[in-house]
Parts: sequence; structure tokens; C-alpha cells
Amino acid sequence: MGMTQGLKRAVLVNAKGLATIDDHRRRSWADLSQRVAQLAGALKALGLQAGDRVAMLAFNSDRYLEYFYAVPWAGGVIMPLNVRLAAPELVAMLNDAQPKILMVDEAFQSLLPTLSQAASLKHVILAGDPPHPPRTQGGESSHPPRIREGDPSLPPPYTGGIGGVLNYEEILAAAKPAPDAERTGDDIAGIFYTGGTTGAPKGVMLTHRNVVSNAMSMLLSIHKGQPWVFLHTAPMFHIADSQWVVGATIQSGTHVFIPRFNPEETLKAIQTHRVTHCAMVPTMVNRLVNFSGVENYDSSSLKAINYGGSPMPPAVAARAQAVFPGCEFFAGYGQTETSPAITLLDSKYHVLEGPLAGKIASVGQPVFNMEVKIVDDNDHELPRGTVGEIITRGLHVMAGYWNKPEETAQALRGGWLHTGDVGYMDEDGFIFIVDRLKDMIISGGENIYPVEVENALHQHPAVAMCAVIGIPSETWGEAVHAIVVLREGQSAAEAELIQHCRAHIAGYKCPRSVDIGREPLPMSGAGKILKRELRAPFWQGQARRIN
Amino acid sequence: MGMTQGLKRAVLVNAKGLATIDDHRRRSWADLSQRVAQLAGALKALGLQAGDRVAMLAFNSDRYLEYFYAVPWAGGVIMPLNVRLAAPELVAMLNDAQPKILMVDEAFQSLLPTLSQAASLKHVILAGDPPHPPRTQGGESSHPPRIREGDPSLPPPYTGGIGGVLNYEEILAAAKPAPDAERTGDDIAGIFYTGGTTGAPKGVMLTHRNVVSNAMSMLLSIHKGQPWVFLHTAPMFHIADSQWVVGATIQSGTHVFIPRFNPEETLKAIQTHRVTHCAMVPTMVNRLVNFSGVENYDSSSLKAINYGGSPMPPAVAARAQAVFPGCEFFAGYGQTETSPAITLLDSKYHVLEGPLAGKIASVGQPVFNMEVKIVDDNDHELPRGTVGEIITRGLHVMAGYWNKPEETAQALRGGWLHTGDVGYMDEDGFIFIVDRLKDMIISGGENIYPVEVENALHQHPAVAMCAVIGIPSETWGEAVHAIVVLREGQSAAEAELIQHCRAHIAGYKCPRSVDIGREPLPMSGAGKILKRELRAPFWQGQARRIN
Repeated sequence: MGMTQGLKRAVLVNAKGLATIDDHRRRSWADLSQRVAQLAGALKALGLQAGDRVAMLAFNSDRYLEYFYAVPWAGGVIMPLNVRLAAPELVAMLNDAQPKILMVDEAFQSLLPTLSQAASLKHVILAGDPPHPPRTQGGESSHPPRIREGDPSLPPPYTGGIGGVLNYEEILAAAKPAPDAERTGDDIAGIFYTGGTTGAPKGVMLTHRNVVSNAMSMLLSIHKGQPWVFLHTAPMFHIADSQWVVGATIQSGTHVFIPRFNPEETLKAIQTHRVTHCAMVPTMVNRLVNFSGVENYDSSSLKAINYGGSPMPPAVAARAQAVFPGCEFFAGYGQTETSPAITLLDSKYHVLEGPLAGKIASVGQPVFNMEVKIVDDNDHELPRGTVGEIITRGLHVMAGYWNKPEETAQALRGGWLHTGDVGYMDEDGFIFIVDRLKDMIISGGENIYPVEVENALHQHPAVAMCAVIGIPSETWGEAVHAIVVLREGQSAAEAELIQHCRAHIAGYKCPRSVDIGREPLPMSGAGKILKRELRAPFWQGQARRIN
Repeated sequence: MGMTQGLKRAVLVNAKGLATIDDHRRRSWADLSQRVAQLAGALKALGLQAGDRVAMLAFNSDRYLEYFYAVPWAGGVIMPLNVRLAAPELVAMLNDAQPKILMVDEAFQSLLPTLSQAASLKHVILAGDPPHPPRTQGGESSHPPRIREGDPSLPPPYTGGIGGVLNYEEILAAAKPAPDAERTGDDIAGIFYTGGTTGAPKGVMLTHRNVVSNAMSMLLSIHKGQPWVFLHTAPMFHIADSQWVVGATIQSGTHVFIPRFNPEETLKAIQTHRVTHCAMVPTMVNRLVNFSGVENYDSSSLKAINYGGSPMPPAVAARAQAVFPGCEFFAGYGQTETSPAITLLDSKYHVLEGPLAGKIASVGQPVFNMEVKIVDDNDHELPRGTVGEIITRGLHVMAGYWNKPEETAQALRGGWLHTGDVGYMDEDGFIFIVDRLKDMIISGGENIYPVEVENALHQHPAVAMCAVIGIPSETWGEAVHAIVVLREGQSAAEAELIQHCRAHIAGYKCPRSVDIGREPLPMSGAGKILKRELRAPFWQGQARRIN
């Protein structure tokens, strides 16, 4: 996880949002990111190589922020200098870390004749604003820096040496945006100087993992909120619940258990233990909010329900908000392969009216730590709004499949996990899932792979050919449906085939209904059953999608 | 970062807090952790080796949670099984991942004759409660699992084979607690089965980094809160501010800049841009809250101020809370070497009265991602309440010092960063800093190393011997004070010596006062100046501490 990934996600989830305010200058996240890419291009044009240091000596400004991101974007290492140090101390640091490029703002321009003694420097960039009116006018400092003291003997602005002083805005405007170098993990993000007991300054090397972990940890501490009481309603073997084994422990909250979900026991536990958080599949939410007598229980302690596994129909969402008015809903999309979070639909998008209304049909935006791309069959990224396979990478992606190196390599090809889900990303970074590459059925929040059911059916002597598909179900989202072609001269009834399956596979995977016929199933040229054609009549007028 | 680190931190920060509620059974975090260590001991006594899998087939319970933590604590890999699968499907998974140990609760006991076909199994542990009254009575399931269906032909409880069925509570009670195996990072935390398109189940290997990152990411998303507007008041070169370059970007909030801190510009920016968050040193907070006219500015948007670098005197804390009533204060302790967060004092401990009052004198508890120990000179951990050096490890710890392999090895010896700060940890996991191993002075939030100042003084021809110490200062926390012994026949005035220093080092490092004498300074047997003796008269009646 690297700094620039955080910047790119900020653009993805909040492109038009205000990223910087510096006096009268304001920029959106999209604008900031564009400028960062251009400044990175300018630095590379000046000869910046991977791992090279770029020093900065300036007061706070939006350009200082751009520097923080443009340097790693270009593959470099930041080196922010203490504005209070004397010039000889700064020269010692420059000689130690040997940056090729130094940025300064106008306030420190007068130090350049001394700083340029550092032999490594090839370029100086002036990153401030014109000195009229001075940015520091009216400012005061607890320790006035030496260079601010009026000294009539100060040399004139430095413009020569080291190939001249470049202007920040000019080189940025002239540059082509660079691609993100994607520095991450153990790559050094910056060198931060600290005094040493020996008097010699020490350059502390902080990695991208260091600075991003620190920021997440600080955010978590500051957002901690009220004590957690987490109710394990979904089965704990399932990653949708077991992720909260870790999460509620990080909160050092209270774990509450019921052996298995049922609406009454869940409501009782919420009331008795003042439960604040839980994770569910939408069918559980549905059964809970429609449970007769739900109003008789005190569920006012509920703060948030995280759900995932299949869509929450708008009617259920509306009812849920009416029954649990103080509770926020977060829809997750993910897989076991991603621990499982890939995207999350924030509670504020669980609305059926107003400007945010359309987003409830999506699975939300990528969570921090995870990147998402929509790609074509050759893994080339597609434009926004175009349907393709959803692929993802980041800290949540599995190490691999146990003892399955080929399937692992296939799933993780190119360094991205291929989800097998098909969808598109809108202009605001929301992912809409429209189909699955695989024909997996999701019924009551459980993944069911048709081939397993088909394998069971094929073990019945009367079955010549079969296809198992998901069809719409009010209760389960999808129900397992089989289409069977019988062998010549054989016969079998629907109930018999279902009973046959029960002897081989889990009950929830067995067909709920079977169509029995004699006509061959529609096949592709390559000899594959065309399941989309079989599904079409069932799904007429409604989109088949999951989240 | 591993799962068990999260458990240990929960114990550290909330030992007496309620960790689990299972029906009428309740356990604190301290109790849970003790049981986890004992269960881990029992698993190791059964022959569990590093990386061995332990399977679990059970409904939700507190023991399921203990299993999640005890297995990695013992060095193993968890393998939670889907309770809805048919026995042959489970056998296929057992044969694939080959666990030596299987835990089941009573509900699944009847499957044991089938499950024990898995050749790898050496031990079975019965982890449920006695079947009277059945835990699932009154329960219902959307998909009733096969094994719950009343079947008079069910075999009697399985007690034979695989060396008999062990009882969870019995082996736990008999076991010696094991030390934490400290599995982390790329170590496999668990194998989670998911169906494959080929019908064969695939075991998804999730690492400790996977599951912990996922949990942090989910927590961040759910806690995100209102949009952030972060004001850069502290200088951006300093890690205390630059950490929020990353943090506020993760929030995709708005960055606001003022070139340099001053109270009026800060208050103006807060009012104009509706600033929600900022980071300061206590001297800044002090100047802000005591600024004449502070009440004339609208600072109601402020949600949190993160401060660190030196202590906030109780009077300033009280005044700050009066002036910014809606704002929370979080005190951080750390170093550049730790990106910088090591501990954080939560806002709720910023109180001068009541049961939490004493904690404001501490620097708080370790943040997530970081572990802290108090050790003696041989790096042996000391009991709570005993003063020693503060050492730390975790994701925020630097890669090292640039071009200083020996100093890096010294600082990171034994895999822990040695902070050079001296303090103790109380029974509740709060760190109290009482002194520094190094003689560093912290003045106005800036670190000043006496040896640098002494080096400057020594360059004056009249100086024979000198020592630089920190003395109490109302304004700066500490002020730089020099004690100088002049050479025979030489003389120098206080102002002259200070002026001399200004030519060599930054103004804020120069002595504010100088004692000039002829008597040699007190020395240790090893020839070191005894600075504690020099400091003693200045600090009489007050504790010298930082945070």
C-alpha cells in the first residue's frame, strides 16, 4: 500500500470534492491528481530516477502537498527539510542524502547561494508565490527563523548556478503527465531528518507501508467512537462474519454469540446486550424487519449493519430504515479471495430519492487498501460505463489457493485477482454488477456452483443432459432451478430428482424446481450449453445482479 | 501485523472490558486471552506444529472465537468449515487441507464417523456444550442443515477412533499456557473453502496481513464520519503534520494551508473554511486558546485536535476545552522513527476530575499496529509500574537511518526500536514518561540535542567545559540552558556566548540563558558530566517529562 494509491482512491471516490484550499486558490481532487502527475512528469524530465531524493524547503502550501505526492508518483523519495535550521545544517543534510533536485519557496530563496554548495544538486525549483504581497506578512513565529530577520546584507535573489532556477508552475505546465510509479510496501517513501546524540543529523527512512499504516492507525484511533458490541448473527465459518472476529477485536469491543440466526433470538440479543453492530445477508435483514412483533424489541442501540452476498431490494431497505431508524447500513461486495472486502456502499447512499438515489443499485466504491479495474478479455482497462470483468488488487488479496498453483496463477494473472464478476464503473467510481462470468448462483447469501448440482443430477440414471441456473426468488434472491433432458426410454419425476440430489450434496444446493423435457438444450458452437438463453425467460424485465 | 497482536492489544487497552457474551457465559478480555493461551498450549501438546491446520465445524459460540485466536497463537492455521455441507463434501475438504485436529460442537457429533475417514486426522475435540437443553432449541434456519433433521437412524454419539474424542474444557484446563507464536505478515492465517467452477472446492489461503488489513479497512469505512477539512498549522516538513498529508487524503477530505502558525491566521482559517481537524504542539494550543479575541471567531466546526511533542499543562487543557467545547483532544507520543505514532491518549482521558482523571499525565495507550514494552538495560521486560526504557515494534517502525547501518542496528536491536525515553506502563496499559535516556531537550515542540549546542559553545575560544540542559519554561515546556566553565585567563559574557552560537546553529537551539563559572562540572567515574545533578536544582518540586 503506497501513498499514491491513497491519492488515486481519493480521486476515485471524490473527484469533484475540494482537495486543497490555499488562500484564494482551490483545487478538486481530480485537479490535484492531474497536477501531481504533471509535476511528476516534470521531475522525470529533469532526470529523476527511481529512488532519487527530492528535497523541499518551504512554508506550508498546496504545492508542498503536491510535492509529497508527485515525488513518489515519479518514483522518487521525499526529503522535507526543517525550515528553522541554519544554512550549514541544511547543507550537511543535502550532502548526506544527496538529492538531485531541491525545491524552495520565496522565503528561502536567499539561502540558495549556500545550499547550492551541496554537490549532488542538479536543479533548483522555485515553488512559492511571487513575494508581493509576502505570504508571511502578518505572520509570527515562536522561534523566528534566521532567514526572516531583516538583514540588509542579504544577497539578491539567487538566479544562477546549477543550471538556473526553474519555476514550479512553468515546468508543471510544460510537462506531460507521468504514469504513477506505484511505489509501495517496503519502498522508501521519504527521508526525514532527526538530530542525533552525536550531533550529526540522521535521515530516518520511512517506507510507504510505514506512513500509510501510521495514517490508518491514527484515523482508527480518532474515529474509534463508542464501545462496540458486535453480534455474530451470520455463521462464523463465513468470511462475511469472521472478518468481524478481527474487526471487533481491534475495537476491543464485546463479541455476542447466537448459535444460528433466527429473527426472534437476534432481536432478543440486540435488546438484552445493547448490540451496536452486526453483519448479515439481506435475507436475514428481510426476515428481521418483517418479523411480527419486531417493534416490541428495543433495538435503539444498533449503530450499523454490514450486509453483503446478494442485493437488498429497495422495499426491504425502506422497511429496514423505518424499523431501525438510528442504524446505518453498509453494503459490502467481495469474495473469500479478498478477505472479503473489495467495495462498500456507504450508508448515505441507501436512499431511494434525492440526488444520491441511483447509487443503491451499485455495490459502492473501492475500500481503502484495494484497487479495482474493469477490463476486457485481454485485461485492458475499459472506459467508465463500459461493461467488463471486475479485477482487483491490494492488501486483502489472498496468498493463493491451497495446493492449486495453476488455479492460483490463473486467478491472479498479471498481479490482479479476477473476480469472475461482470460490471461497470460509473463516473463517480461506483461499481455496478450486471452479471457473472461464471454461472454461480447466489441463493440466500450462499454461493452455489451449478456444475456441482449438475454433477449430482448426472449420477441419476435417467438424466441425459442438464443445466442448472439461478432464477428470481422473492425470498432467496435467486433459487436453484434445473433443466433436465431425460434419456430415451427412461423416466423420472421432479421430486425424485431433487431427492436424488439430497443424497449427494448439501440441501441448500439442491434444485427447488426442475423442468423435465426431451428436447436437447441450446448449445454454443464450441459445444457449451447457452445458459444465458435458458435464463432469459425467467429474468425478463428484471436485471440479474448481485452484490 | 497478525491476528494475535490485535488480541493482545485489546487486552492491553481493555483488560477488564467484556470480551464475550455467550448466553449466560461472560468473559473479560484478560480471561479470553488466558483461555486462548491455554487452548494453544493444549493444541501444541497434541502435536500441532507451525503451519498445521486445525478444522472447526460448529455453530457460533465463544469457543469458536477462542479457536480463531488459539490456533495462530499456537502457530497453526485455521480452517472453518461450512456447517451446511454434506459429510462427503466436508471429507473432501479435510482430505485436501489435511488438518491433524478437528473441533466440532455437539450439533455435528453425529457426522464424526464419516468425517473420521479423513486420514490426516489425529485428534477430535468436542467444543460444544452438553446437549441438554440443546443450544439450537427454538432456533430455525433458512436452510435447515441436514444433520438437524430428526432421523431415528442417526448413530449414537461418536466416542471411538482417532484416539477418542477429547473434551474442549478438559484439555484447556489441563494445559499450560503457550507463548504467542506471533504469526504475522505473509504467514497464512486461515484456509477458507469456496466452491470451484469445476465443482472441486478450493481452499483460499488468507494471510495475517490480508485479514488484519481487511478489518482495518472496514472499520475505517464504517467510522468515516463527516467530511474532513484538515488545516495544516504545524510545519509540513515535520512528521507530526505530514502524517496528516496521508491521513486526510485517505479521508478524501480537504487540505487547508496557512504558511506558518499564528493564532489569528489559524482562527481565521478555522472560521472561513469550517475546519474540522488539525495537528498542533501544545505551545500552539496554548497561544491559540489564550489569544485575545479567540471568542470572536466561530470555531464550532472543530471536531478534533491531535497534539504531541510536549505535555499540555492541565490549565491549558481546561482552557482549551472551555474555548473549543465541541472539540476532542488526542495526545500523541512518537518519534520520527515511528512515522510517528506509538501511543495515543484518547480524548475521554483529557479530564481533571473523576475516575479517569489520572491518565492525562500519561501519553496514552499503544495505537493499533504498534507494540510497546518497558525493559531494563538487558532488554528484559519489566513488571507494570516499573521504570525502564520504552521500546516498540510494529508497522510504523522505520526501515532504518540513511547510510547509517551501525546506528540502525543499534536502534533496532532485537527487532525493537529503542526510543531512548524512560517511563513505565500502568495496570491499564497507559505509558507514563518520566525521563529520557538521552539528554534531548524539547522546547516549543522541537527536539534539541544538547551535544549540538555544546559543540557550538566549544568553538568559542574562552569555553573550557560546558553542559547544556533543559530547564522548566512556562512558555516552551523546556528552555535551553548552558553551564559554562571558562578557560584560565579568558572571559566571555552571556550575551556574547549566545551570539556566538547563533552563527553556528539554528536560533531555536541557542541557549536562552548561560551560567558562567570557574568550577569544574560534576563528573561520573567514567568521566561523563552528570547532567542529572545539574538539572536537579531547576526541576525541584516538578517532574520533568514529555509527551
